[in-house]
Parts: sequence; C-alpha cells; structure tokens
Amino acid sequence: MTVLTALDYAAVLVFALTGALAASRKQLDLVGFAFLASLTALGGGTVRDLLLDRNPVFWIADPTPLGIACGAAVLVFFTAHLLESRQTVLTWLDALALPIAVAAGVRAASETGQSVPIVLIMGIATGCFGGLLRDIVANEVPLLIRTGKLYVTAALTGAGAYLVVEALWPSEALALAACIVTCFALRAGSLRYGWGLPVYKPRPPRG
Amino acid sequence: MTVLTALDYAAVLVFALTGALAASRKQLDLVGFAFLASLTALGGGTVRDLLLDRNPVFWIADPTPLGIACGAAVLVFFTAHLLESRQTVLTWLDALALPIAVAAGVRAASETGQSVPIVLIMGIATGCFGGLLRDIVANEVPLLIRTGKLYVTAALTGAGAYLVVEALWPSEALALAACIVTCFALRAGSLRYGWGLPVYKPRPPRG
Amino acid sequence: MTVLTALDYAAVLVFALTGALAASRKQLDLVGFAFLASLTALGGGTVRDLLLDRNPVFWIADPTPLGIACGAAVLVFFTAHLLESRQTVLTWLDALALPIAVAAGVRAASETGQSVPIVLIMGIATGCFGGLLRDIVANEVPLLIRTGKLYVTAALTGAGAYLVVEALWPSEALALAACIVTCFALRAGSLRYGWGLPVYKPRPPRG
Repeated sequence: MTVLTALDYAAVLVFALTGALAASRKQLDLVGFAFLASLTALGGGTVRDLLLDRNPVFWIADPTPLGIACGAAVLVFFTAHLLESRQTVLTWLDALALPIAVAAGVRAASETGQSVPIVLIMGIATGCFGGLLRDIVANEVPLLIRTGKLYVTAALTGAGAYLVVEALWPSEALALAACIVTCFALRAGSLRYGWGLPVYKPRPPRG
Repeated sequence: MTVLTALDYAAVLVFALTGALAASRKQLDLVGFAFLASLTALGGGTVRDLLLDRNPVFWIADPTPLGIACGAAVLVFFTAHLLESRQTVLTWLDALALPIAVAAGVRAASETGQSVPIVLIMGIATGCFGGLLRDIVANEVPLLIRTGKLYVTAALTGAGAYLVVEALWPSEALALAACIVTCFALRAGSLRYGWGLPVYKPRPPRG
Repeated sequence: MTVLTALDYAAVLVFALTGALAASRKQLDLVGFAFLASLTALGGGTVRDLLLDRNPVFWIADPTPLGIACGAAVLVFFTAHLLESRQTVLTWLDALALPIAVAAGVRAASETGQSVPIVLIMGIATGCFGGLLRDIVANEVPLLIRTGKLYVTAALTGAGAYLVVEALWPSEALALAACIVTCFALRAGSLRYGWGLPVYKPRPPRG
C-alpha cells in the first residue's frame, strides 16, 4: 500500500467515525450507523468522482473503503457510550478528517491534469461534501455554516498550500503534508482559539 | 412488458404517491405535486444510474416513469382529502415502495456484473435515496433516521435475500419475491409491532 | 461572446448574488460567501450536466462562471449592509435568476437532441436545483416549497413557452425571450400579486 492509498483510507476512516457518532445521536441501529458512516466517508470523494467523470467511482473500483466505514460504525456503536461528549468528539474528528480528505481530493484532481481553480474546488468538494451530507441527512445545522468558524476557508487554504509547495519543491509528500498541516491548523485554531476571518455583520438597527 | 419492467414501474408509482402526499402536506399546487412526486419516484434510481455510470439515466432513456409519476401526482391532488391521515398513508406506501425499489436496484446492479458489496449498496441506494430526497426537500425529519424503526436494515436484508436465493435457485422471479417479502415484512413489522435491532443507547447521566 | 454565453453567465451571476445573500444571513466569512454563491450559481447546471452526461461539466470546461460567482460573493460581502431587507432582495434576485437559468437549461438539452419531456425537465432542473441546494445547505425552508407561490410552475411554463415559440418561429432569440418573460412574469406576479394555481386544501376537521 502506498502512502497515498493510506491517506485515502485514513480520510474514509475518520469521516466514518464522525458519521457513526452522528448516528449515535439519532439512536439508530447498527445498520443505520453503517449507512451514515458510509455516506459521510464516501460522499465527498463520490461527488468529486462524479464531477470529474472518474469511472468507476473509487469505492466501486475498490470496496475497501466500504469495509473501513462499516468497521468504524461497529466500533462506534459499541464504544460511543464511553465518551464524555459525542458532539465534541464528532467536531474534532471532523476537523481531523477534513484536511486528509482535502489532500486526497487535490491529488486526485491534479493527477487528471485539471487547471488550478478546478484542483482547488475538488479539494474543497472532497473535504466538505461528506460532512455536509452527514449533517443534512441527520437533520442538523451543517458544521460548515456555523458562524465564525473556519471551515471552507481552511479547506481552501490547505488546497492552496499543496499547490504552492508542489510548485516550489518537487516532492508530493511535502505538498500533502503542507496541505494537511495548514488546513488542520486553521480549523483547530478556529475551534480552540476562535481564529477566524472577519464575518459579515449586518448593520445594527437604527436607534 | 416484462415482469421486471412492471416492477420498475410499480416502484415509481408507489414512491410517486408518497411524494405527492408530502406535497399535499406542504399545500403545493399541481405542478409542485408533480415535482415532488417525480423527485421521490426517480431519485433513487437516478443516484444508482449516476454511480454505476449507466447511460442514459433510466427515465431519460424511457420517459414512461415520468408520466407515471405525474399521473400519481394528479390522482393524489384530487383524492388526498379523502384520507383520514395522510402521514400514515405516506409512511405505509413508503414501506411498500421501499422493497420494490430495492429489488429493482439489486437487479440493475447485478445485471452489470457488480460484486456482492456493490450490489447490496445499489439495492440500498435505489430503495432509500428517493424517500430521503423527498424528506429533505420537504423539510421533514427523514423517515430513514427515525429511532427504533427498521429502514436501511430492511433494505439491506431484502437485498441480501435476493443474493442468497439467486445463488441457491436459478430463478430470478423467486429471488425478487424473496427480496420484496423480506424487506416489506421487516419494515411493516417495525412500523406495526415495533420490531427492531437494538439501538444505540447513550449512557444515562451519572446520579 | 455570443448572446447565449451571455445568458449563461447572467444566470450564474444572479444566482450567485442570492447565494451570497444567504451566506450573509448566516454571517459567514468571505470564503463561505464564495462557497454558497458558487453552489447556488453552478448547482442547477451541474445537475443538468450530470443527468445528460455532458462532459466535462460546464464550469470545469470553462471556469469563468466560478470567477463570476466569486466576484458576486465579494460584491455582496461588502455591500449587503446597505440593503433594507436582504431576504426580500434575495427572493427577487432568485425570481430573476430562475427564468434565465431555465432558458439556459432548455437550450442545453435541446442542443443535445433530447425529447420534449426531457427538455422540459432539464429546464426545470437547471432553474430549480441551484436555489434548492442553497436553501438546504443554509438550513432554510426551500423557496420552492412555499405554499401558494408559483415556482416550479413558472419554470415549467417558461420552458414550455420556449418550445412552443421555437416550433412556430425559427428564431432562437425569440424563444429564449418568450421563456424568460413568461417565467419571470408568473413568478413575479405570484410574489407581488399573489397569483397562483389552486393549492391542495386539506379537508376541514369535522365539526
């Protein structure tokens, strides 16, 4: 297994854990856990593959990610009660999955020779759509639109870091590392220390 | 018309009725009924065809399902006021549509020579995504994530029953029947008698 | 630039403004504005291209629409505070974007030689799915399912007007104009004067 396949699998695993945690908050059964874990873990990459017309979709070509997602579902089903706060763990695992998935998306798009804007978009799409689908299906306010938290911004910056490093050094490993570190640092800093870009502030009502 | 085409059309018809009932709960006009009926009826199979890269999508190749969905919308628009409880009828028609759509999805995937996990997934996707789209667009909590009700589990078991029977007897009709009966029995037993797998139970707060 | 490309870009621009306004209501940062603007602006056409297997998707073939959407996001980020009611402006810009996107969808489908029902559906899908995605991701009740407002009906009538005019006069410009004027007139009349088809009315409770 190459380092790159390992990355793909890691993104699937961590996103699957978040999907299973969302299922635990809805008190679903084991199959419901596996469904939501798989939807979250495979959703972003599936959107990317459909948009790029990559054929077959990655988890149809190799069903290992499906197995990983189901394994993660089983693990969470039997251990989630040990956690103090499932929502906190979900948010932090999501923060860990996002950078890995962005890196996987950027690499997949850059392999197929896409232009810079499309590579950036595919990084964002791969990183963001899994969690977005999870939140929509679980009927929660998407993490992605929470006010004052970096999410798409972290994904975009990570994808940009990949492209900059790859242009300057001929090392894919370094580019992937830069992507993951930058994206995670921004997201984690946002969650932990409130880092953020200025957000839109509506005009205060006139007195 | 073969028995199999009849099955496809039956799934479209029954899901379209549920979509139109959802539209009646939102007090839409006749075109709104047709939109939500078509989205529900065609959504699952469309997701399946996009994932499998089946081309053209089934209702573009043959628009009969569109006509069926619109007919169902008209029927419900003029008769839904006769029902005692539209939500109950919607839930039970959904329980009837699910097994038929799972069977159609399993058959379509197994025709294209997919592996066992992919055939199971396609059965689940075809069965579940139409109703999921209906509930998300209609801004309702998806039926699929209601606590303590078998839904994805029923779909998975039905798809599994198809594969088991097809492997043991060389009769597709029997396999389809096994799929539909098993899936409907589980879903109906869950709705009527509360059958279910153990669901995740959070740890009670410490006293 | 042909008149037709100008139309495509106009639909992208106006839908992007609505997406950015939705982002302002969620108090997102600039990248969040660009994400929601792009999702809204490109969503409908992307669904159309995936369904028709048009390859590559329009904004991958030519990323100009992405640039337009991001420009619209920046504009709204710095000027939305000047508006009296962002929700009202959003609704009316959406009413303007719908007809243009329907026209773009109808033309794209009719170029690829689709049958009449499929051309109508593609007009509706291109017009409606961008706004639908915006509302679902922003966790709002979709504009499309608001009781007593013409939305899908306006899209369908506009798409029908295109086909009728194109069959009677050999002028695409006239057909596009008929589509846009009809669709906008119905939607605007619905918003301003309460025009509507009869909506489904549940039976009053028995006394």
